[in-house]
Amino acid sequence: MHLANRGHHVIGVDNFSRRKNVAEVGSWSATPIGTMDERLSAFKELHGTDIEFHEGDIREYHFVKGLLTRYKPDTIAHLGEQPCAPYSMIDVEHCVYTMTNNIVGTLNILYAMHESSPNTHLLKLGTLGEYGTPNIDIPEGFFEIEYRGRKDKLPFPRFAGSWYHWTKVHDTGNIMFACKIWSLRSTDIMQGVVYGTRTDDMIDDRLLTRFDFDEIWGTCINRYCAQAIIGHPLTPYGLGGQTRGFIALRDSIRCLTLATENPPDESEYRVFNQFDETYCVNDLAEKVQKVGKKRGYNVEVVHPDNPRVEAEEHYYNPDHENLYKLGFKPAFSIEKELEIVFKDLERFKDRIFAKKERIMPTVCWRK
Amino acid sequence: MHLANRGHHVIGVDNFSRRKNVAEVGSWSATPIGTMDERLSAFKELHGTDIEFHEGDIREYHFVKGLLTRYKPDTIAHLGEQPCAPYSMIDVEHCVYTMTNNIVGTLNILYAMHESSPNTHLLKLGTLGEYGTPNIDIPEGFFEIEYRGRKDKLPFPRFAGSWYHWTKVHDTGNIMFACKIWSLRSTDIMQGVVYGTRTDDMIDDRLLTRFDFDEIWGTCINRYCAQAIIGHPLTPYGLGGQTRGFIALRDSIRCLTLATENPPDESEYRVFNQFDETYCVNDLAEKVQKVGKKRGYNVEVVHPDNPRVEAEEHYYNPDHENLYKLGFKPAFSIEKELEIVFKDLERFKDRIFAKKERIMPTVCWRK
Repeated sequence: MHLANRGHHVIGVDNFSRRKNVAEVGSWSATPIGTMDERLSAFKELHGTDIEFHEGDIREYHFVKGLLTRYKPDTIAHLGEQPCAPYSMIDVEHCVYTMTNNIVGTLNILYAMHESSPNTHLLKLGTLGEYGTPNIDIPEGFFEIEYRGRKDKLPFPRFAGSWYHWTKVHDTGNIMFACKIWSLRSTDIMQGVVYGTRTDDMIDDRLLTRFDFDEIWGTCINRYCAQAIIGHPLTPYGLGGQTRGFIALRDSIRCLTLATENPPDESEYRVFNQFDETYCVNDLAEKVQKVGKKRGYNVEVVHPDNPRVEAEEHYYNPDHENLYKLGFKPAFSIEKELEIVFKDLERFKDRIFAKKERIMPTVCWRK
Repeated sequence: MHLANRGHHVIGVDNFSRRKNVAEVGSWSATPIGTMDERLSAFKELHGTDIEFHEGDIREYHFVKGLLTRYKPDTIAHLGEQPCAPYSMIDVEHCVYTMTNNIVGTLNILYAMHESSPNTHLLKLGTLGEYGTPNIDIPEGFFEIEYRGRKDKLPFPRFAGSWYHWTKVHDTGNIMFACKIWSLRSTDIMQGVVYGTRTDDMIDDRLLTRFDFDEIWGTCINRYCAQAIIGHPLTPYGLGGQTRGFIALRDSIRCLTLATENPPDESEYRVFNQFDETYCVNDLAEKVQKVGKKRGYNVEVVHPDNPRVEAEEHYYNPDHENLYKLGFKPAFSIEKELEIVFKDLERFKDRIFAKKERIMPTVCWRK
């Protein structure tokens, strides 16, 4: 929507797996999501533009190749991966599904670019979680290193925290290699945790994005906001010192637009660490609590046992210069953005309440 | 065979994909390979021991889980991956097959260990090629690093040179993670290029291992030996300064035995760089030429264009202390081993000659 409103010719592709996978675990989005036809019609009615759409699965090579041969797009904004850590940790079947879905989809795009559209810019969603939580600063993708008296510039070591996060590490290697051997161009986005209900283009509830809030599909801030709205205590896991980078959905879309409109050179593989600020989950719970109280909610915080295997107190300092150099400035403070989230969610309180049994964690990293 | 002869109870598992995949590209092994029944009977006849065998595919979880539940083995020596770089580079289909075969097989083993046999030691074949050719020394898996004044011990960065090699990088991440979250134990072998026709247990031609020599399945030394035998020039690609670690098959099996008999602790993930010496491909061609001349062959060397994308002159210095600390000593010099290869291959000269059109490279990394 954002790109179409800026005058780009946009072609949407989806296999609707997200809807199915959220339904599978007995949950749904707080914001009701219409069919693709309804959403496209609403967009046309409200913004006056047709967005072309193709239903299909990027795990099928001929589908991907057909699209690239026909359209030779300037950019592929590849958001078509299974994006959920707990979902990937349910069992071997969900692990293997996540691995193959993500890796094969990306390989198919790389091959189709190579064979049919080698000038296309692949804008790929990775995750800041690829790096894990090392005890040293995290550069953007690569670092100059001295070791036993010799120097090189190498990919920064990755150590991810879920099968899902590892698929992004694996994609990173595969994309880097494809750019090298086939002179393709790609921006690999190491994105922080996204939060929020909207972008500026969502001028009607029919255009809202999903807002998942259950233990599996809800990211931490989204979960805390939904919890506050229905009077459920906020639930930072364990000690709560787990620190990550965060970015509002609105800003994420603006960053992806900047990368789209400022593509890399031929053969260039570049990495953007895409986040605004780092917070530990206790900080976030406190912020949600503060905004909630301002709006009249009584918000408590509890600390369930951590279902994940992760450091609960650690150093964390990732760089994020590249997007700022392209002109990125965050739109709002996190507290202002959280107020918008609260206002949006209040209309859908009943939908959150209906799934309140799906909020506390059941998927455990150890078992 | 080697482990059974040392008194271990050995259970073989195979889906026979190697035979099919070599036949698919119009080639075969110089050494004729009997059916599994024939090989097991020959082993029984000559060594007096039954080796149990199960045909099946480790991409099927229930098959793997069934085996681990039934046997709870001390060690899984996991050699069940598609091991060929050029085969993985043929086209998208072969790339995706290699990725999914290798990654899913290993994930199934990890899950089955976790669910049914958590004390099993996973002895996994990776490759020295995971590291690529950095301009700094290559430690065994991990390195202590100082960056911007802070320190950590992190996985050494990987940059592989083919889809096949990348699958091993991806496995490395997945195994490391499984050991961390589930307290599993694993030895990840970063193995050099293996060469040779035999181990000490192959006391009859019916027990010989495969010896592939075509452009796709033949490793460089094997190819050079086969070429020398039929009067084909040796073919180091490009400048020939490409340097790698090498190890004789006989020594590789002895190293795997050392790792099997000295397993890691619970939760321990350890990495062995498993090679004897490093050589550039020009060195190898020269050694094969020298041994060939001694045996009366007229051996020429040519330099075809390099079908791969790789540095042809570079620094290369991997560590390999861990196996030596366990007592590993190479059995023979490379020249002595090459003499054995020549003697073995001379009996199968006609089989090499019959496939001489499959020796020059056609699979190209760029196209």
